[in-house]
Amino acid sequence: MIFPLLALLAATQADTAPPPKQTSAQLAAAAPAAAWGAIDPGDLLLIEFADGGRAVVWLAGEFAPVHVANIRTIARSGWWGDASVYRVQDNYVTQWGDASEKKPPAAGITLDPPAEYEWAWGAHGRAVANPYRDAYARRTGFTASGWAVAGDGKAQWLPHCYGMVGVARNLAPDTGTGGDLYAVIGHAPRHLDRNIAIVGRVIDGMAALSALPRGTGGGLGLYEDPKQRVPIKRIVLVADLPAAERPTYQYLRPDAPVFAATLEARANRGGPFFTVPAGAVDLCNLMVPVRTVVGR
Amino acid sequence: MIFPLLALLAATQADTAPPPKQTSAQLAAAAPAAAWGAIDPGDLLLIEFADGGRAVVWLAGEFAPVHVANIRTIARSGWWGDASVYRVQDNYVTQWGDASEKKPPAAGITLDPPAEYEWAWGAHGRAVANPYRDAYARRTGFTASGWAVAGDGKAQWLPHCYGMVGVARNLAPDTGTGGDLYAVIGHAPRHLDRNIAIVGRVIDGMAALSALPRGTGGGLGLYEDPKQRVPIKRIVLVADLPAAERPTYQYLRPDAPVFAATLEARANRGGPFFTVPAGAVDLCNLMVPVRTVVGR
Repeated sequence: MIFPLLALLAATQADTAPPPKQTSAQLAAAAPAAAWGAIDPGDLLLIEFADGGRAVVWLAGEFAPVHVANIRTIARSGWWGDASVYRVQDNYVTQWGDASEKKPPAAGITLDPPAEYEWAWGAHGRAVANPYRDAYARRTGFTASGWAVAGDGKAQWLPHCYGMVGVARNLAPDTGTGGDLYAVIGHAPRHLDRNIAIVGRVIDGMAALSALPRGTGGGLGLYEDPKQRVPIKRIVLVADLPAAERPTYQYLRPDAPVFAATLEARANRGGPFFTVPAGAVDLCNLMVPVRTVVGR
Repeated sequence: MIFPLLALLAATQADTAPPPKQTSAQLAAAAPAAAWGAIDPGDLLLIEFADGGRAVVWLAGEFAPVHVANIRTIARSGWWGDASVYRVQDNYVTQWGDASEKKPPAAGITLDPPAEYEWAWGAHGRAVANPYRDAYARRTGFTASGWAVAGDGKAQWLPHCYGMVGVARNLAPDTGTGGDLYAVIGHAPRHLDRNIAIVGRVIDGMAALSALPRGTGGGLGLYEDPKQRVPIKRIVLVADLPAAERPTYQYLRPDAPVFAATLEARANRGGPFFTVPAGAVDLCNLMVPVRTVVGR
């Protein structure tokens, strides 16, 4: 039974049936090359785990420049040489960095970055408006540079959706240095929006962060036994890798003509599986499509 | 650094500071016994994995009676004796049941259940209204029996939130028998609402379903090698266990006076960590609180 059969059955439909509605993925796949934008290797952070797993974070330096500059400096300094995942809280976050909490910060970083949680509406260009209602923000959209954004007409910010990466911090007004990062692994905790610096999005290898055993410490998913920590082999900027070793990615440009159709296709799914289209779609179910050009 | 320190620092705040705003969890913990309702052991399905893991599903027989009757029959028949998890798709679902897809159905079940996807507005009693905006449904709320519901004033349905359990099915108008089930393990795929029968909610042991290795087959998270399947030791109704072995749970009654305050506390989080309250909260971040009375 079940979902696995979908593809088989779809292929046996009568030729006389009207063409099935295209899915968002099909629309994106058929888009011309010009609809896809390159992601700069200087904006890609590769996390390699000791067990061979890996994840790739697309850095949002455009929106959190001081924190992302710190992250680049930390990556190049080797400070993460003994980093590990030390916290995995179910339906919330996976967090990595310095489990000891005692390591002196990497040389050359800004120790007290400003609260890069939001920016003045439009400061990063006019976003393509999202016509679908959001539970948290009055106005949402997508920057031409490939980021889903939320806002209220005065301020704009990055939303805490599945796979988004933020900077762990202590109590306000601390903003964190960037040495400890987390990725969202559950339903979007949007109450964190405007309270933490978001610095990126996991665009490849999310399972290396989401499928880890959950921790049991402190009601925060901390690994209580240091042996539970998941050792990280290295964290490196893709731009710092030899050219032949660089994974490369593209994003579907929100200002490309096809983009609006991909949103509609996700709000009103067609095909033989769905009987009632939602007529709606959550911002966090509208993450900008990313494709791998050269994997690793 | 970071979140782990929160509890320590909170305890050292000056005595002269105003009392911190109570969290939703604190409000629930302080609620009188009458605010908590018992969950019937006949509505609890215990899933025990061969490796010792376990999960508990609260069955929603009130809303999907034919499917849930099937599930009770299947559990008692032993049909799940060789069941396994055979599909884990990141940011989507974990699915279990008959990986062979060839097993004859359990005796005594209804083979073609009706589409128990929604019901007439108010047919299950007047829900406590949720004042917060939802991205998908015009009206949302909570039944006195403990379920978050979505609707439009004419129809009402259960939402596909993190941890909700649905009946895997093939193409419409098939509705599935209940022999294969899935739990949501990522951002709420609310486009499935009204298209699949929801039959329950994981209220304990969610990590046993969410932290599994992701599958790579068919773009659907299928385990391509049968050896990857996660064997299930047994699936049993808690009511069918000896009394001394039964885990017991309670839910915070949505019609209890404290309930509205717990919603507000989640929409506008206080304390020294949050600087900007959201003033909003997604329905899927408002799951009705459940507490363990007797664990296992």
